[in-house]
Amino acid sequence: MNIAVIGLGLMGASLARALCGFQDARIIGADIKSDVCRRAVETGVVERAWTSPREAMKDADLIIFCVYGRHIPGLIRDNRDVLRPGLIMADICGVKKRLYSRLSALIPPGVCYIGLHPMAGKERDGFENADPAIYRNSGFIICPESDVPEEALRLMKDLATHIGAARLAVVSADRQDEIIAYTSSLMHIASAALCLDFHPEMTSAFTAGAFRDCTRVADINAEAWTELLLDNRSHALERLEKYMANLDLFRNAFLNSDGEALRALLSAAGDNKRKMLRL
Amino acid sequence: MNIAVIGLGLMGASLARALCGFQDARIIGADIKSDVCRRAVETGVVERAWTSPREAMKDADLIIFCVYGRHIPGLIRDNRDVLRPGLIMADICGVKKRLYSRLSALIPPGVCYIGLHPMAGKERDGFENADPAIYRNSGFIICPESDVPEEALRLMKDLATHIGAARLAVVSADRQDEIIAYTSSLMHIASAALCLDFHPEMTSAFTAGAFRDCTRVADINAEAWTELLLDNRSHALERLEKYMANLDLFRNAFLNSDGEALRALLSAAGDNKRKMLRL
Repeated sequence: MNIAVIGLGLMGASLARALCGFQDARIIGADIKSDVCRRAVETGVVERAWTSPREAMKDADLIIFCVYGRHIPGLIRDNRDVLRPGLIMADICGVKKRLYSRLSALIPPGVCYIGLHPMAGKERDGFENADPAIYRNSGFIICPESDVPEEALRLMKDLATHIGAARLAVVSADRQDEIIAYTSSLMHIASAALCLDFHPEMTSAFTAGAFRDCTRVADINAEAWTELLLDNRSHALERLEKYMANLDLFRNAFLNSDGEALRALLSAAGDNKRKMLRL
Repeated sequence: MNIAVIGLGLMGASLARALCGFQDARIIGADIKSDVCRRAVETGVVERAWTSPREAMKDADLIIFCVYGRHIPGLIRDNRDVLRPGLIMADICGVKKRLYSRLSALIPPGVCYIGLHPMAGKERDGFENADPAIYRNSGFIICPESDVPEEALRLMKDLATHIGAARLAVVSADRQDEIIAYTSSLMHIASAALCLDFHPEMTSAFTAGAFRDCTRVADINAEAWTELLLDNRSHALERLEKYMANLDLFRNAFLNSDGEALRALLSAAGDNKRKMLRL
């Protein structure tokens, strides 16, 4: 089996490396940066790499797009003639529904498409930060199109297990986007907004774990996240508005110096948190 | 020197243990729970412990209150007759100004009062979770009353260094409360509010570091934090309203599908985050 990883940035290069030894597959790749291709081959991340995605795609049995979602329709359109029946195509984008609606007319007959969403990442991106360990013990969401054959789904589950994913879910693209709007989109918005202003006289003496953790994901790739958040616009907006309404409950408790209300809010949050850890 | 730690919960017992070896001091303590007193002595956390704070306070050269702030005025009032000139009293509450205003008339002449705020803690409280390591590499804020002698301030700095604090700040009570409203109060409110509702179909497959970190401090001691947040009510409310205004900028960007605005917000958040890490 030839697996082509298209895009050898943080996620793609980490994935290519994590796929080492998976069903004796040959891992090949493509990246627009020629020096990334060169280093990926030199360091054994992939067996071969091309700056032309077409070269990597044409002999592939499984293509995994690890590029911005907006580039995927073009990559499929431009290389449709080399996609053979039996091929499986996948992506690792964080938001699926909008991407699927752009792709549905482009997938040739006999080719199946499965969205993958490894719940992994790092604050620093790029090939130089790649590390297969990011997938270890991670969550992994699989969003098959309705007509995906059982063997293809099985292959994706095996792939997830091989790279170290510990918790799998198989759901529709829309349901994944809705859930992710809470577990990911909202968390990133909340964290970024916490950093939009800060106390000018603060120093590290005033910070502890709460500050460190709540603001950890605030320094993200603005370009990538703008796309992800806009692709999940309606679900993310709904979650953000719920969050703001919940913050308003805290605001009212403060305005009324209402200790009972504050205690009830904190207790409910704690109860929910413990519930979520059991899910 | 006799150091009396009043209250042997998570913070107090951890502190008592971390003080081991500090200037050859004898560490004694008090806790309303007799079994905590017994275990604290058995495990060497303190040399002696009483359920009556008065017994621990009467021979002390340094008293450190590790109890809810609301209990401190009563503890001082009820035991004023055993407080000798030269004594240093301190607390480790997270909010200072309101506590100070309640205490100022109660401190006998010749006794000095210094607020300490070790930026440390744990999700689980109580004597059984005590661990001196919580203070290691932590921030540490010292809020002396205006007339505190230089030697007393020096002693508190040495104490902070001894227990492992890595970053010290000496500021007024009001300034500490204002800064903490951002670095601590707001972070806890933001995190708790994130858990006030959640997607019912989420499982751990859908969660990664962003969810884990942003919601980490949501499961807190509701009782303790209601007091802390209400004690810092005006500063916390101001910070919360700023936060809600910043979230509203995200909301507007979503409503207008404005990628430029979203990108600018995320970039500004990342810039600020990197700035804060250098402070």
